[in-house]
Amino acid sequence: MVADPSASSFLPTTGSDQHSLKNVRAVLFDQFGTLTDWQGSICRLLEQEARKTDESSGAGPRGLQTIDWLAFTQLWRDGYMKRTREIASGGTGPGNIDELHLEILNDLLEKPEYAAVKERWTAEKRRELCWLWHRLNAWPDSRPGLEDLRKLDPPVLLATLSNGTLRLLVDVSRHNSFPLDAHFSGDLLSSYKPNPKMYCGASSLLGFDEDARRRGEVAMFASHIDDLRAAGQHGLRTIYIRRATEDVGIAHGGAAVKPKSEGGEVDLVVDVVGELAKELSSCTV
Amino acid sequence: MVADPSASSFLPTTGSDQHSLKNVRAVLFDQFGTLTDWQGSICRLLEQEARKTDESSGAGPRGLQTIDWLAFTQLWRDGYMKRTREIASGGTGPGNIDELHLEILNDLLEKPEYAAVKERWTAEKRRELCWLWHRLNAWPDSRPGLEDLRKLDPPVLLATLSNGTLRLLVDVSRHNSFPLDAHFSGDLLSSYKPNPKMYCGASSLLGFDEDARRRGEVAMFASHIDDLRAAGQHGLRTIYIRRATEDVGIAHGGAAVKPKSEGGEVDLVVDVVGELAKELSSCTV
Repeated sequence: MVADPSASSFLPTTGSDQHSLKNVRAVLFDQFGTLTDWQGSICRLLEQEARKTDESSGAGPRGLQTIDWLAFTQLWRDGYMKRTREIASGGTGPGNIDELHLEILNDLLEKPEYAAVKERWTAEKRRELCWLWHRLNAWPDSRPGLEDLRKLDPPVLLATLSNGTLRLLVDVSRHNSFPLDAHFSGDLLSSYKPNPKMYCGASSLLGFDEDARRRGEVAMFASHIDDLRAAGQHGLRTIYIRRATEDVGIAHGGAAVKPKSEGGEVDLVVDVVGELAKELSSCTV
Repeated sequence: MVADPSASSFLPTTGSDQHSLKNVRAVLFDQFGTLTDWQGSICRLLEQEARKTDESSGAGPRGLQTIDWLAFTQLWRDGYMKRTREIASGGTGPGNIDELHLEILNDLLEKPEYAAVKERWTAEKRRELCWLWHRLNAWPDSRPGLEDLRKLDPPVLLATLSNGTLRLLVDVSRHNSFPLDAHFSGDLLSSYKPNPKMYCGASSLLGFDEDARRRGEVAMFASHIDDLRAAGQHGLRTIYIRRATEDVGIAHGGAAVKPKSEGGEVDLVVDVVGELAKELSSCTV
């Protein structure tokens, strides 16, 4: 039932088209960094875990609490980005994000600067820590923006499209009371973004075939220009959101991203999710 | 990532166990007949369509409105039950419920008593009519019961497990404001119930492996004893709800279904969805 992703490749629309979003009937949202603040959430949760470990081991504030957990969080995430891209392009590795997070965490703890952590966090504890990623907090504008999108008429379907597991997406969604219709995950579609199976599979399962994508009925919403570039190649409309933690240091990302109307490569650039609801409601009147 | 369904078969628990539901952390809900009243919904929508056709063709109330649409609705549904079972056990046929509904509708319209319908409802119209199944109304107790289940602590994940397409489940869920975490459909899991791929696949994607199922962490909720029997064979707990339109005329269904505590074969029998919330909250205190 899932369309063959190799069957077609859409050329990105070029030039200015102020109504390029007028046919949108479904929006696929990236999760990590786009709807949720992984950096702030994981850093804070790791700090809490470090404090708990110090208290139970009697180490006090000279223990694991002295570690730079923001840097640790960034390294954990960097490892995830590197590994999912390797696997998406045909490399081997776990198809489950919890297993992948565990693999990267174990590698990280081999670094000399984390020797004290390695010593205190057992295999069981490390496995438990991978579930911290199921408790990410939303950026403040995410839930209100999704609620605005949900009020549109004609209705627009709202789903996640993420490299997380389905369970992770469900947990994060419930944790933040996101009003979403469906979740599309790496384990459900047997791949990772930017593999075409992800964009085409999610669209097909929502009932949008290649023709519907060509008419611009499905949009991808992300804070990563690479994700949107891949989505655009398969006919999806593209909405970029600038997020403080994402596309940092990427030459073509962040503030450099422009809409097609300004000579850029995406259909819309926003700073909060709610701007998309406004744009879509002005397109359809 | 989806567990191999042939790898194991659980023997149904026998005898009385009043706490058999105490480990439940996810409930999979059948859709047609269980959460929604397909019979009343489709019959009413078909009557509306017949009236519209009569008005536009000038036939007035002597036209398609004279047809027994309740009987027609039942035949449409019977055809669906027959065909999904054939396909679930290895037969060929569409993997998409809209296509399947169209196939059965076209067959039905070949009957002499529906000659007038066949004449007036074009191929395009018939395709459109299959989407009526995306607008089923809930039984009155479904949404309040789901809301009660959503308040449980520890949380219980709530999902559909249906032979419908994902798009149909999403549409029905939004139409009725069901507070569900996920949807598992025929097209997503590449089969139809009672094929084991459905029960095992949905459980795995929610993060419950064979061991978790053995501990009774996943339950199936349905108004069809056959569905529950298949679910029980793969370790799922079983909750039967008596619905006026379901298991009618099936010797072992309806009022004949008993819980294991009364020598029957399911874990719980209820008359409204909310009874499950009460049962689960009394199990976990």
